[in-house]
Amino acid sequence: MDETIEEIMDATYAALCRHGYASLRMQDIAAETSKSKATLHYHFETKEELLHAFLDYLFARFVERLDRIDEPSAVDGLLAVIDEVLSPPADDAHREFKTALLEIKAQGPYDERYRAQLERFDGVLYDRLFDLLMEGRASGEIDPHVDPADVADFMVTACNGAQTRYVSVGHPLSRSRDGLSRYVREVLAADRDGGGGR
Amino acid sequence: MDETIEEIMDATYAALCRHGYASLRMQDIAAETSKSKATLHYHFETKEELLHAFLDYLFARFVERLDRIDEPSAVDGLLAVIDEVLSPPADDAHREFKTALLEIKAQGPYDERYRAQLERFDGVLYDRLFDLLMEGRASGEIDPHVDPADVADFMVTACNGAQTRYVSVGHPLSRSRDGLSRYVREVLAADRDGGGGR
Repeated sequence: MDETIEEIMDATYAALCRHGYASLRMQDIAAETSKSKATLHYHFETKEELLHAFLDYLFARFVERLDRIDEPSAVDGLLAVIDEVLSPPADDAHREFKTALLEIKAQGPYDERYRAQLERFDGVLYDRLFDLLMEGRASGEIDPHVDPADVADFMVTACNGAQTRYVSVGHPLSRSRDGLSRYVREVLAADRDGGGGR
Repeated sequence: MDETIEEIMDATYAALCRHGYASLRMQDIAAETSKSKATLHYHFETKEELLHAFLDYLFARFVERLDRIDEPSAVDGLLAVIDEVLSPPADDAHREFKTALLEIKAQGPYDERYRAQLERFDGVLYDRLFDLLMEGRASGEIDPHVDPADVADFMVTACNGAQTRYVSVGHPLSRSRDGLSRYVREVLAADRDGGGGR
């Protein structure tokens, strides 16, 4: 990726953390770079265009991170995906950034392009979970009664809920991650304790 | 409740559906009533005060609806709670209203009072699920290995995720509701199919 674009993407992250989504201006993003507002406008005509490019950038990084997961077993793969999606804050601005993302989610009904982008995030996560569940069923690691489509959808919903609660009321991501991990180990895995443990 | 206040609450619902949260003005709410903007200001000094009162009003109605659930069995009670929280749209403006609520959730980090109110919604739902799980364990309807605290938290997270996906990408509430209902019947219930069905 072009160095200037990379710098603008980093600046967009920083500006979203600092100002949130609703009141963000091109000027705020420019202030986080060594470039002028005019340079920003040369690359992205409007704020909306820049933010759509930023979501594409985030999506590419999300796919990369999912692709890097390479566990030998399906159950470990599922747990690694959950860790990736619900990882604890990497920096102090983490919750501010997730808040801006939730604001963007609330734009879904009004902005067709945001919605299509948000669908891709849910979609790639769903596909990855679905594939791991299919693999696990084939290898005998995952209970044969598990329906991969239903369960992958349920897990994507739980991941969305974890992010929402983290932002709206500060519910710890780690608590949601533990709940989802337990679900994988104690409900989906074929070798769970006979009696339950759910 | 005072008739004027009731009218203002109904108007706030309508105005949120029509204008969303971010750009809502007192004038927009007044326009949905037979009252003047001055009358609104007599009852609520600021828009924020009115919206906090509106969330209190929604919360009271939510508690009423949960209290109305009176199923003879714990499993049926859990399913009824899920139906109540993830009921399909009652009117055309349903998604617009849920969108406004998601915008308010994104205000949680910046508005202490919203956050406290949002916590009460999650809290009363958690308590209701927790009590039903405890009842079900005592009566033998719910698997004794189920941890009521962990499972109630997981279910509240899934409900939040269902609302978020419904707004952000139009994911059907009914699909999330079915996923959660299956979880209750096929994972939590003591009389589920021996082998799985999860």
